[in-house]
Amino acid sequence: MNDVVLHNYFRSSTSYRVRIALALKGVEYTYVAHHLRHGAHREAGYLAINPQGLVPTLIWNDGTTIAQSLAIMEFLDEEVPEPPLLPADAAGRARVRMLAQMIACDIHPVNNLRVLDRLRSRYGADDVEIADWFRHWVNETFRPLEQLLAESAHTGMFCHGDAPGMADICLVAQATNNARFNVDMTLYPTICRIRDACLELDAFVSTAPARQPDAE
Amino acid sequence: MNDVVLHNYFRSSTSYRVRIALALKGVEYTYVAHHLRHGAHREAGYLAINPQGLVPTLIWNDGTTIAQSLAIMEFLDEEVPEPPLLPADAAGRARVRMLAQMIACDIHPVNNLRVLDRLRSRYGADDVEIADWFRHWVNETFRPLEQLLAESAHTGMFCHGDAPGMADICLVAQATNNARFNVDMTLYPTICRIRDACLELDAFVSTAPARQPDAE
Repeated sequence: MNDVVLHNYFRSSTSYRVRIALALKGVEYTYVAHHLRHGAHREAGYLAINPQGLVPTLIWNDGTTIAQSLAIMEFLDEEVPEPPLLPADAAGRARVRMLAQMIACDIHPVNNLRVLDRLRSRYGADDVEIADWFRHWVNETFRPLEQLLAESAHTGMFCHGDAPGMADICLVAQATNNARFNVDMTLYPTICRIRDACLELDAFVSTAPARQPDAE
Repeated sequence: MNDVVLHNYFRSSTSYRVRIALALKGVEYTYVAHHLRHGAHREAGYLAINPQGLVPTLIWNDGTTIAQSLAIMEFLDEEVPEPPLLPADAAGRARVRMLAQMIACDIHPVNNLRVLDRLRSRYGADDVEIADWFRHWVNETFRPLEQLLAESAHTGMFCHGDAPGMADICLVAQATNNARFNVDMTLYPTICRIRDACLELDAFVSTAPARQPDAE
């Protein structure tokens, strides 16, 4: 068995997701930072580990190498079942995966650093327009997410019942990112209530971007 | 038990994913079309089913309602285990989910109809620029995807071994979309080989966009 290694970047919200999951599971790991702004993730050494050159990448203690934060969280939930990141029933698992993917597929990829960079380089988007683009896609999904969370009897202290899971992880990572672009979170009282409940837990606080060794 | 219902749109590649999964599992369903271009998905009746107003949404025979194509495929794989869409081992499942999410998170959302529409409305992008944007994000991910598939001993006739699964589904749906934007697929011989192997199977052919009742 080797050490678990997480290749990541303090500010990357997909990296933050995996850090939270590892902390909830109580998995110790070696933190390897790749500075996305400086292109360190384009180093040949890292591309041999992750040909996309993206973070995060998890290297498990048996050498299994996995990219994509949702795939990593599913893997962790199988390898270290307690505490679970998904409910015990199929419909519950579907609901939590759906809520997580609303953020992980419909918000984050469109607002990713490389997409914003391309808007700047191809369309001359300035900081004001970049922030507007970011907020637009957050609001497009946070409106129905707020509704789904507010109206469902499955919502508890967290997105699904009274224990944090995969959807809460994505929610907190996104909410943290939102602060950089001044998203009006007062529109989303249920999302805020769940975020605040998560931020009572050390697994969400100790793994936050500002607390990481590569934080600026 | 009620009929299974799939709310979808013939051209939507996330809808195509779910149609393939249902066909591989041999699940019969009622096809309900929502024309994204005509805004039919913004009808109050559909928003009550899916507050995002996006397709696909699956309504299972017990009334369970699920949006997000990856969550739907995971649910189907749990409810109807044969044939499996994921391998039997955790590392294999992680690999297939990773390959699927490279497409489902890093290509599709950035090239989605609503994003392309916003590029047109906000930045005046014309058809040439839209096609360029589309191909850029496909190529950014297809290059490492081709490498991962070509170099891994886990790759078989399909993305993982010799039976089609979740990664193949995403790959074929994306490759079908690519044809509309003239992506140069000769750059990706392994991806093409796997696509062609899939297209030997009725589950991939009968569910293709052009074969659906709402096809234009």
